[in-house]
Amino acid sequence: MSPASYLAAAMVAVAIMAGPLQAQDEDQVRARDIGLAPGILAPGPLNAITDVDGVLVGHVTLTGPDFLRTGVTAIRPHPGDEYADRVPAALAVGNGYGKLMGATQITELGEIETPILLTNTMSVPRVADGLLDWSLAQPGHEQIGSLNMVVGETNDGRLNDIRARAVQPEHAVQAIEAASGGAVGEGNVGAGAGTVAFGWKGGIGTSSRQLPEALGGWTLGVLVQSNYGGVLQMDGLPVGEELGQFYLSDQVADDRADGSIMIIIATDAPLSNRNLERLAHRAFAGLARTGASMTNGSGDYAIAFSTHPDVRRTPQRRRETAMIADLPNGQMSPLFQAVIETTEEAIYNSLLMAQDIDYPRVDGGEPVRALPVDRVRAMIAARESE
Amino acid sequence: MSPASYLAAAMVAVAIMAGPLQAQDEDQVRARDIGLAPGILAPGPLNAITDVDGVLVGHVTLTGPDFLRTGVTAIRPHPGDEYADRVPAALAVGNGYGKLMGATQITELGEIETPILLTNTMSVPRVADGLLDWSLAQPGHEQIGSLNMVVGETNDGRLNDIRARAVQPEHAVQAIEAASGGAVGEGNVGAGAGTVAFGWKGGIGTSSRQLPEALGGWTLGVLVQSNYGGVLQMDGLPVGEELGQFYLSDQVADDRADGSIMIIIATDAPLSNRNLERLAHRAFAGLARTGASMTNGSGDYAIAFSTHPDVRRTPQRRRETAMIADLPNGQMSPLFQAVIETTEEAIYNSLLMAQDIDYPRVDGGEPVRALPVDRVRAMIAARESE
Amino acid sequence: MSPASYLAAAMVAVAIMAGPLQAQDEDQVRARDIGLAPGILAPGPLNAITDVDGVLVGHVTLTGPDFLRTGVTAIRPHPGDEYADRVPAALAVGNGYGKLMGATQITELGEIETPILLTNTMSVPRVADGLLDWSLAQPGHEQIGSLNMVVGETNDGRLNDIRARAVQPEHAVQAIEAASGGAVGEGNVGAGAGTVAFGWKGGIGTSSRQLPEALGGWTLGVLVQSNYGGVLQMDGLPVGEELGQFYLSDQVADDRADGSIMIIIATDAPLSNRNLERLAHRAFAGLARTGASMTNGSGDYAIAFSTHPDVRRTPQRRRETAMIADLPNGQMSPLFQAVIETTEEAIYNSLLMAQDIDYPRVDGGEPVRALPVDRVRAMIAARESE
Amino acid sequence: MSPASYLAAAMVAVAIMAGPLQAQDEDQVRARDIGLAPGILAPGPLNAITDVDGVLVGHVTLTGPDFLRTGVTAIRPHPGDEYADRVPAALAVGNGYGKLMGATQITELGEIETPILLTNTMSVPRVADGLLDWSLAQPGHEQIGSLNMVVGETNDGRLNDIRARAVQPEHAVQAIEAASGGAVGEGNVGAGAGTVAFGWKGGIGTSSRQLPEALGGWTLGVLVQSNYGGVLQMDGLPVGEELGQFYLSDQVADDRADGSIMIIIATDAPLSNRNLERLAHRAFAGLARTGASMTNGSGDYAIAFSTHPDVRRTPQRRRETAMIADLPNGQMSPLFQAVIETTEEAIYNSLLMAQDIDYPRVDGGEPVRALPVDRVRAMIAARESE
Repeated sequence: MSPASYLAAAMVAVAIMAGPLQAQDEDQVRARDIGLAPGILAPGPLNAITDVDGVLVGHVTLTGPDFLRTGVTAIRPHPGDEYADRVPAALAVGNGYGKLMGATQITELGEIETPILLTNTMSVPRVADGLLDWSLAQPGHEQIGSLNMVVGETNDGRLNDIRARAVQPEHAVQAIEAASGGAVGEGNVGAGAGTVAFGWKGGIGTSSRQLPEALGGWTLGVLVQSNYGGVLQMDGLPVGEELGQFYLSDQVADDRADGSIMIIIATDAPLSNRNLERLAHRAFAGLARTGASMTNGSGDYAIAFSTHPDVRRTPQRRRETAMIADLPNGQMSPLFQAVIETTEEAIYNSLLMAQDIDYPRVDGGEPVRALPVDRVRAMIAARESE
Repeated sequence: MSPASYLAAAMVAVAIMAGPLQAQDEDQVRARDIGLAPGILAPGPLNAITDVDGVLVGHVTLTGPDFLRTGVTAIRPHPGDEYADRVPAALAVGNGYGKLMGATQITELGEIETPILLTNTMSVPRVADGLLDWSLAQPGHEQIGSLNMVVGETNDGRLNDIRARAVQPEHAVQAIEAASGGAVGEGNVGAGAGTVAFGWKGGIGTSSRQLPEALGGWTLGVLVQSNYGGVLQMDGLPVGEELGQFYLSDQVADDRADGSIMIIIATDAPLSNRNLERLAHRAFAGLARTGASMTNGSGDYAIAFSTHPDVRRTPQRRRETAMIADLPNGQMSPLFQAVIETTEEAIYNSLLMAQDIDYPRVDGGEPVRALPVDRVRAMIAARESE
Repeated sequence: MSPASYLAAAMVAVAIMAGPLQAQDEDQVRARDIGLAPGILAPGPLNAITDVDGVLVGHVTLTGPDFLRTGVTAIRPHPGDEYADRVPAALAVGNGYGKLMGATQITELGEIETPILLTNTMSVPRVADGLLDWSLAQPGHEQIGSLNMVVGETNDGRLNDIRARAVQPEHAVQAIEAASGGAVGEGNVGAGAGTVAFGWKGGIGTSSRQLPEALGGWTLGVLVQSNYGGVLQMDGLPVGEELGQFYLSDQVADDRADGSIMIIIATDAPLSNRNLERLAHRAFAGLARTGASMTNGSGDYAIAFSTHPDVRRTPQRRRETAMIADLPNGQMSPLFQAVIETTEEAIYNSLLMAQDIDYPRVDGGEPVRALPVDRVRAMIAARESE
Repeated sequence: MSPASYLAAAMVAVAIMAGPLQAQDEDQVRARDIGLAPGILAPGPLNAITDVDGVLVGHVTLTGPDFLRTGVTAIRPHPGDEYADRVPAALAVGNGYGKLMGATQITELGEIETPILLTNTMSVPRVADGLLDWSLAQPGHEQIGSLNMVVGETNDGRLNDIRARAVQPEHAVQAIEAASGGAVGEGNVGAGAGTVAFGWKGGIGTSSRQLPEALGGWTLGVLVQSNYGGVLQMDGLPVGEELGQFYLSDQVADDRADGSIMIIIATDAPLSNRNLERLAHRAFAGLARTGASMTNGSGDYAIAFSTHPDVRRTPQRRRETAMIADLPNGQMSPLFQAVIETTEEAIYNSLLMAQDIDYPRVDGGEPVRALPVDRVRAMIAARESE
């Protein structure tokens, strides 16, 4: 079946959305709601990356017959023109087994000039082409002759016929256009539609932290696309060992723990790209706390950007020496603590907000279930009764 | 005019080729033929990257009305199955202002698993999609669910309507399929069809060195896509200053010296990816000797791979601990010398083998001429008469 | 008081040792003995870095009046001549706020040629000079004219008068000469004499893992010098929050969480320096699981080496192309899992084996206590009774 | 003979100086004075790193019997307190076969907090200890408990008994205290006393460029310690081939081309550490133009810092978010051009200002001569008569 016929088929659903799914499954919960609140800092009002003022998120989710379960997620640093008004940005690579586009230019110039798009491994080219379609068509972009498209991915090939490359350029455009502030869809949406984490259904998750005023009062938010493995630990609880769904020591070499994670970090603190890079590296500490095995076959990337107006690279600031804001090294530690625990919580949300998939894996294996929330609740209750 | 209409138009020429152009212009010469023989080591028989046994090169060149002048160049490390039998490889970034795909995985795993494709900046996604088309369709690749497409680019937007994205996925497939050993087309071919270097017409160039037996006897070849600027120096001759076509000191800040270069390095020496990375870094010393200004807006990348059978990552060697060949650090210096001078000479070939473009630039500027070979010859003659 | 007078003073104790302290305090326990056994893999016989055959450890501990509490720890990759028979090695930098010597050459050449020494921040020069004294005096080293001394450090200035620079070159020599296999001293010994972690006494800790035969059967060991902060978590138990000794959210910006950690990793798996570097990076995932805040002022480094005879860079192998053993990428995941949990456990050992310091801090603050083992035991008991 | 006896010996000369040697040899010339003026930009008034306002240089040169020929060179970013008022800084590693101290912290924090000292390979520890002596003794440094000493080196063991480690900590202090503005000593002085480049006597060299006002008007200066090899090319002239003193193709593998270079770059442009790092990388393009072979055994490092007051990290700016000056990416290209040609010219000065050594090499080989200036003059004259 060709990609075209997939999309023509009557049963294909293309869901374009920004906020969370309307009617939530009762087994869909957010970590904090059941008592999983990693760390010591308080979340923002939405506990989402959109708590960072101006950040927008949009999802396009593709589902249908013949293992169609994939999508695109767009994160926009601000609602204006990302090309004209660039945000400083940085990349950290946890394990580089991935197909992220845009890597070297982010590092060289310390900035991004497009929305950040997430999709599946084999759809990176088409999503990048769609991002190009969109950007070239924006007013004022008539003369752009070079563009650094930032497109990340994880491999949803366990649940999605990844070789069919069902994602088309227009889906990238739709995801960007759907992006909005407010609550963020989590679980089986957008680029998380078909991902798997720790053997359970993974997906999109988000979280945020707001620093006390004494520590700067900055907000930091994280969005993840979870698709990796290891021995799941949730705020210290040995969930993976308890549920028996982890890769035993005589099997840890197999590729079932493989996968990837994309971690997008936004903050309103006025950071240089150097300190954004340090921040991005710390996201992997949050990943580690969930029990990730950091396997050979995982593509683990974190991209951080600052939305502070005084670091924005406006056309004027790109032409002339300007005075820009700079949070000093010595003020970074609270943000480092924040990114660790926010990443950890965003991952839990991606698992807890995911839903069962009711058909077999592409390889014929057992269907992928959502993490059994009742079991997690029970473990939390036992701990609290100590 | 849409990309589709470009390709449908009667006047569009799609030239698919491996070897050099049949009928050479008399002003098309190779550097060594006019006495420009940088360095102290001897070239291989073809003085081309294809002197490294097994390496194949193919070009697809697109020319037509409305500023269509671009293409694809494919470099295959060996004529077999690049995915099954991987070569160790490494990447060095001179200036990361570019859109190279595949960067982080090359570094993480120390290998490549596809041909290397070169094209223009905005065609990277479609060429990557074409590379995926090709690779997924290869016999034995029916189960591949992840592929690290390596696609490099420079910006040919001075001569080519880059926003039209005329390069289609099938052109990538054609370039791979056209790849062959033997002499290599240089100048205005493939991904070099529309590039500009030092204000003159740039393009594809290649060169090689063969080490004396006492130094290991290894062969090393380089292929470049030249599209950058500075103050041209040819084997020490101040050509740029002499011809007056360089960016004066009060103009060096403008973007006319910008551009990019892709440098592909092949060797039959049995190198680890660490020593391949060191080798790749040295290619920029060859670039420097041509007078490159290494400007802000240049995307300068070098990718090196080893074709030695005893470092090849066959399916067997990817499964089990194996004994692999390793040239020690202390034997690297001759290869470092070789890559410097080979890169330098490949760049001269890209300039000297290029031909005049007889229409204005996309921005309406003066047509881009080939480097005036007679003037260079005269400078060489004057030096030799000293 | 000058450094010389420190050493002359009657009360100065210079303890030179390899194995663990003879008479252990009853509150000195190893993590596994009280039920803290992070991860899913089994330790080696000694649960120490010396489980990797050939690896030797030695400590010199300096204690005395006027806040003398510091030392040197030596890790030797093998009992032979490290300069002649080099081990492949790699460095990963978690946070580069540290004074590690030898960094760039490890990465460039992928090897080490000396023992690895650990000490305090301001003693790096003298310890390096002592390492040079020792190496130049070795038989066969009469012609060595260049040596890459590898010396790491953390800052023990809370308990030690670091500005006095009491460590002398001869202490480095003594630590190397004391190095032996067998059980390893932990806690307040060697370079860990004066370190502080999570507000409690830190120090030296070690652990190991032995992979099942099906996963390669390799052994991996870690030794740490712990001196950092955050919110202590022990195998998931929220010890820091429970004991109230962590940095509250309105204080996380202060430098009390600062510090550093040196992590030394040995394995008998035949790894390239690229895969050693990947392994070293994963050590920080173990660090993260202990609740480290990865603060601005921490110098976090991991150095990994392989002792496998078929990767050893003997004089012969440094001269000529040789066949060397290579564990493929696809076999790395079990080692990644191993280094994460081994680092985690080594850190717990460093805390649990440390002892109270019974004098005030250098800045006049409260004495630094050992982690109250009874409290940790109680938390473990409560968890087990669930 | 022990180091102590060296220093006690009557014939040992310790020359402490800032400016150039009083009485110059008539064969000591600066490149520009004989017509070697690489590039297209104009030098500053002194054509020295001290053209960057506030930068100070000092040398201590040790000469004496038994192959004593070495020293220390200090570069101070400004005449104030480098620890309190830090300059942003960055490091680029050309080839990491060297013993540079301070590497990782420069990169992590993007700043330096001490003078930069250069010496010989085996004296790095003692020079670092001397730098510590000096810094700890400065007024206001009474509480410093951590210091990132930046000490670079090249190996002068061809002319100096490097194993004797004659440089003592006090020589480091003397070099710092001798540092002054104004003309800079070049050739056989300070850390260049015993170095060898391209088979001739190398040493210290310096140069500068002043950008036209239209390009920002910034000043950039470079100081090098040259000690490497290759096939010498001077502003395009094939000096090495002409004089026959280069490593023939059947000998390029030997270590005679090995060595190292330290390149220190100062500018008054207000640069971020990211753009300083890009600047530092471009210095190697200048190195390449001199014909460097970039061999395996060379330790090639460039450290760049900005002296602009609006990027200075004062105590106030290290505590609080501040507005700092930032030259945008798009204004970097002129500085890139400047650092390339300034490095090239500084190297020529290091060779042309060096003097013959009139005793044999440590290994008994022929004495090392200064580059024959008359021969170079003749080649220049021939070129000019074309």
